[in-house]
Amino acid sequence: MSTTKQDLLRLGLELLLKHGYTDLGVATLLERAGVPKGSFYHHFGSKESFGLQAIDLYMEGVHAALDAAFAGDETEPLEQIRLFFTIVSAGYKGEGYLGCLLGGLGQELSGISPAFRKKVEACFTVIARRFEKALTRARDQDQLRAGVDPRELAELLVNCWEGAALRSRLRRNASPLDQMLDFYFAAVTP
Amino acid sequence: MSTTKQDLLRLGLELLLKHGYTDLGVATLLERAGVPKGSFYHHFGSKESFGLQAIDLYMEGVHAALDAAFAGDETEPLEQIRLFFTIVSAGYKGEGYLGCLLGGLGQELSGISPAFRKKVEACFTVIARRFEKALTRARDQDQLRAGVDPRELAELLVNCWEGAALRSRLRRNASPLDQMLDFYFAAVTP
Repeated sequence: MSTTKQDLLRLGLELLLKHGYTDLGVATLLERAGVPKGSFYHHFGSKESFGLQAIDLYMEGVHAALDAAFAGDETEPLEQIRLFFTIVSAGYKGEGYLGCLLGGLGQELSGISPAFRKKVEACFTVIARRFEKALTRARDQDQLRAGVDPRELAELLVNCWEGAALRSRLRRNASPLDQMLDFYFAAVTP
Repeated sequence: MSTTKQDLLRLGLELLLKHGYTDLGVATLLERAGVPKGSFYHHFGSKESFGLQAIDLYMEGVHAALDAAFAGDETEPLEQIRLFFTIVSAGYKGEGYLGCLLGGLGQELSGISPAFRKKVEACFTVIARRFEKALTRARDQDQLRAGVDPRELAELLVNCWEGAALRSRLRRNASPLDQMLDFYFAAVTP
């Protein structure tokens, strides 16, 4: 990938998180990046393609956090999930608590764009599958309350986090995130 | 309020839920409503004022559902909360599961508009206070797990619901909503 394209996507991520998709003008992005006008369509073809590729870049960060959190074999699976959210929360803090790009674009665009709707849903599913693996290990080690379903618990964790991330975005602080995790882990453990 | 203004707000609600705020053009709204151009600014002054008044109209529906759900003295408080969400879910179903307008506009606009950010946060707080009252009654009747805080549980309920509503919007079905409520009520009851 060219440096210009990478720069546009990195800056795009930052601007999308703040402005959302429709409010973000291509002209503004190019001006902020100091990139000539023609290059946007050269690199991306369309604004939609740019937005979808920005989500891919966002997911690279999410996967890096997942890999880091789930790397240590000696760490308990529920601790690994906590660690993932500690990493994510630190990212939110660094951005001034603007929440999650997936939740933001999912809400904004899923009523009008099947492509974004499908993309965001696929991202959530991928994240939930990683949680499910950890939750299955936790269940097999008797660290989950009896009778719970790791797949359903994993989806719930993604969804409740997204709601907490919205509230964190509205309030510009971490407390909705922390409260949600405390509630969730108290509810799923024996 | 004039009939034209009411019509514009009612149609606006429907279009905002699907399109979001920035994507919804005033010209489109007026054309769909069959209303002449000048009348929009006559009635609302600005698009922002229109959006904020659309949220007020949305909240009228929320308050009607809250009043209906919390009306019966003979109903247990946790059942009343369930009943509220049954009413809300039925509304979502009627719209084709497009989720919650507060979550949608909160995500889309809270990065760029202090007015919308404040408005949506205030709406969530008002809803949470109603839940808190019911949860306090539930606690006083020993229907909540020991040691829980009704105010914190009420905020959690709002937030987890919003995350589930986003996922319901992405999937266009009720299952994230139902799973969240089942999880929540199992977690908070003894």
